[in-house]
Amino acid sequence: MCEMVMVVKRAHDYLWVGRHERSIICGKILVKRDFGDYMRPSIIALLTDFGIHDHYVGVMKGVILGIYPQAQIVDITHTIPPQNIRKAAYTLFNAYAYFPEGTIFVAVVDPGVGSSRRAIAVRHQGRVFIAPDNGLLTYVLSVPASERPAAVELANSNYRLSNLSATFHGRDIFSPAAAYIASGAALAEMGGEAENLTQLQLPECVISGDLITGNVWDIDTFGNIVTTIGRMRWMDDRLLTLQSAFGAASESRTLDSQSLAVAIGGQLISPLVKTYAAMRDGALGTLIGSEGFLEIAVRDGSAARRLDVKVGDPVQIQLKA
Amino acid sequence: MCEMVMVVKRAHDYLWVGRHERSIICGKILVKRDFGDYMRPSIIALLTDFGIHDHYVGVMKGVILGIYPQAQIVDITHTIPPQNIRKAAYTLFNAYAYFPEGTIFVAVVDPGVGSSRRAIAVRHQGRVFIAPDNGLLTYVLSVPASERPAAVELANSNYRLSNLSATFHGRDIFSPAAAYIASGAALAEMGGEAENLTQLQLPECVISGDLITGNVWDIDTFGNIVTTIGRMRWMDDRLLTLQSAFGAASESRTLDSQSLAVAIGGQLISPLVKTYAAMRDGALGTLIGSEGFLEIAVRDGSAARRLDVKVGDPVQIQLKA
Amino acid sequence: MCEMVMVVKRAHDYLWVGRHERSIICGKILVKRDFGDYMRPSIIALLTDFGIHDHYVGVMKGVILGIYPQAQIVDITHTIPPQNIRKAAYTLFNAYAYFPEGTIFVAVVDPGVGSSRRAIAVRHQGRVFIAPDNGLLTYVLSVPASERPAAVELANSNYRLSNLSATFHGRDIFSPAAAYIASGAALAEMGGEAENLTQLQLPECVISGDLITGNVWDIDTFGNIVTTIGRMRWMDDRLLTLQSAFGAASESRTLDSQSLAVAIGGQLISPLVKTYAAMRDGALGTLIGSEGFLEIAVRDGSAARRLDVKVGDPVQIQLKA
Repeated sequence: MCEMVMVVKRAHDYLWVGRHERSIICGKILVKRDFGDYMRPSIIALLTDFGIHDHYVGVMKGVILGIYPQAQIVDITHTIPPQNIRKAAYTLFNAYAYFPEGTIFVAVVDPGVGSSRRAIAVRHQGRVFIAPDNGLLTYVLSVPASERPAAVELANSNYRLSNLSATFHGRDIFSPAAAYIASGAALAEMGGEAENLTQLQLPECVISGDLITGNVWDIDTFGNIVTTIGRMRWMDDRLLTLQSAFGAASESRTLDSQSLAVAIGGQLISPLVKTYAAMRDGALGTLIGSEGFLEIAVRDGSAARRLDVKVGDPVQIQLKA
Repeated sequence: MCEMVMVVKRAHDYLWVGRHERSIICGKILVKRDFGDYMRPSIIALLTDFGIHDHYVGVMKGVILGIYPQAQIVDITHTIPPQNIRKAAYTLFNAYAYFPEGTIFVAVVDPGVGSSRRAIAVRHQGRVFIAPDNGLLTYVLSVPASERPAAVELANSNYRLSNLSATFHGRDIFSPAAAYIASGAALAEMGGEAENLTQLQLPECVISGDLITGNVWDIDTFGNIVTTIGRMRWMDDRLLTLQSAFGAASESRTLDSQSLAVAIGGQLISPLVKTYAAMRDGALGTLIGSEGFLEIAVRDGSAARRLDVKVGDPVQIQLKA
Repeated sequence: MCEMVMVVKRAHDYLWVGRHERSIICGKILVKRDFGDYMRPSIIALLTDFGIHDHYVGVMKGVILGIYPQAQIVDITHTIPPQNIRKAAYTLFNAYAYFPEGTIFVAVVDPGVGSSRRAIAVRHQGRVFIAPDNGLLTYVLSVPASERPAAVELANSNYRLSNLSATFHGRDIFSPAAAYIASGAALAEMGGEAENLTQLQLPECVISGDLITGNVWDIDTFGNIVTTIGRMRWMDDRLLTLQSAFGAASESRTLDSQSLAVAIGGQLISPLVKTYAAMRDGALGTLIGSEGFLEIAVRDGSAARRLDVKVGDPVQIQLKA
């Protein structure tokens, strides 16, 4: 008879440990794969513009752990430029698909805090997204209308801190909602359906004849210029396919990396190369970024500073015969 | 007979899984709420001026995990301006109450490292605070003398790294102390009582006739100016109560948000509004910050830059008849 | 008979909880110390130049948690200056030994991403190091040739993301490798041996007569100047030993802190003191840093700004009779 039992995990196996009369007994647990999931901690991923200098982010984490101590909190970034909803939407869009299903994202860039803007939560692709309704989820939710999930308004005061402030809903509404969902609360308990979500303009990628038109979507830490032209994928060492990432599904277009030029900031750059390392040192080059969008870079330097471009500036790919 | 047993957690329930002869058996565990607490990982929250560029913070985390691998380490901030004890005290004061009981705070802003300044630990409001004795805990511990908890000097070399440096006690003393406490060591084992802790001056909030006097306590990432005048709370859409947060308990005072003006940096600002969103775009406004202290802000801008004020500058509320 | 069983952990003890007929029974588990190790989460420590503003670091964490949800991810730093392999090597060297055995380090400063540079993993001192083969591991692996561990090239596509990009191997190769190793995969499965690893030049510390020669190795957040002269250790209040940290084992040399001077940036600084607190306010001083290397500092100020020196500049200790 198993007078005492302990369960331990070693690599992929679960072991049990018990005592039979005076000896220790031990064995491997043959569990169905599903059981492993119960051991999986709930991941709560944070993205804010609260910066890293103040107490704001620490407070959010404290609130989450107070409600759900098992949460595994992951910082995506807290240095979105203040009130820059577009950058927050872009960053979340680029990050979310790499997190496992079950992850709960809390994205708070919230210039309308305390106003009538809604706080929302939505389940999408097996993950949960919590944010103010100000367009922050636009890119993540940009799927055909028929697949678009219903959002819920975070209105139930049982899932908030008891003293609701007018200035810090990251603490009072968004963090508690994430922690309660992680601990098993259903979205439907949180509030009624939130319809007609606020939308940002979708990134432009227009293919017309021998011209592909878009603009600068982001400039990263390295000074690399990420454009809205994508997604592209290498088919072989020379040919690429391009299929617009947003809007209605479009046919894909095949491009020849050797016979195209990228126009940006008054310069024409060609050809398209495969890696930063394939660029000449210090020269401008274009390549396909890690998410499949056209990028302009300088090896070991800043393309944005070199070209003096900013977010929103026009970019073209000119296809030559 | 339960030949093998596994315990899994699903939302709020614990399940057990066993095998009886050739079949898998499973059920819900009806535990008293207390058992859940044993599963709660120990939270160790860090606040330092070590910055984010060097190895110092990583080293502290490595030391903690070497002693207590189950620790859940949370960063409050590591970018307190170098040696700025006042800012560290302010940040810890604003953050700690949102963390669950049982949290261990390690706060290291330590210009006196290697000198005779003491290293201390104190249990307060169900949490443990570990810091150099240089005033860093002043605001957190500013309770009436009768409620003030006894601090312990971290003197026992069993709870330090073995090679004590003269320059990095965050690694050698403070982190190990936190990890040993998390793993069950009692504060009383760490050293004798530390009396007469070093104190910072308490934030000023003087109510005298129709004038309330304080000063600039902090300027946050957004450029919002946080003052020492508080705590205030909205009673309805117009009236507020103010009760001094520090020093002897005082009577509370009722203020009318429509008939007061805030004097700062040579300007008079009124009225007091409820939310950032209620301010006119680009105009200076005053409101009650998320911790109940008077704040001066510019919607989508920096009030500190606009007014050119700094920490310590005077602020007044003028109450008009 | 134990109809249901739960295992809980309290400080150092494991408890079991069961039910016997209608009563709850409970006891202490007398396990061998080893079992505790199975509960130890795998620590994966990250060090990159990806910055804190973009989605890159969040993506790496998502990938790791998707493969191995139990991972305990720790940030060492993500603000290594872009492409600065030397600084990454220095930071990793100073941090790794404080992490417990079993820690997996992922260090990605990777200007050669997408080129033929190899991705490597190596087990050393009970820990695993994963990095591009560009010299980043030079300092960590600078042990006598006979003790140098064999590295493995991360070539097996089973341990990568399926769509390998040419620009973000932190996501596609390094993070997955760490997560698979944490979950029990053997290094030998990952690829064949990688010989002749790329090496940085080793830090210089030459003892010759009455002159010890080195250079500036790093400048930290506080503006402290860390030199390559070390490691040194205080023997008493006046005498120190110096033994070169790199290269062939050398005899140790005894120095008198009262009769030496440090020459740097055109200045002679003496004596060597024990703590920052022992320096005169605002004056230049020299001391032994927390890792045993000669440091030049200004109390509550920046020595690097004062002396206008940069990494690589010469430093000497002049020993006087």
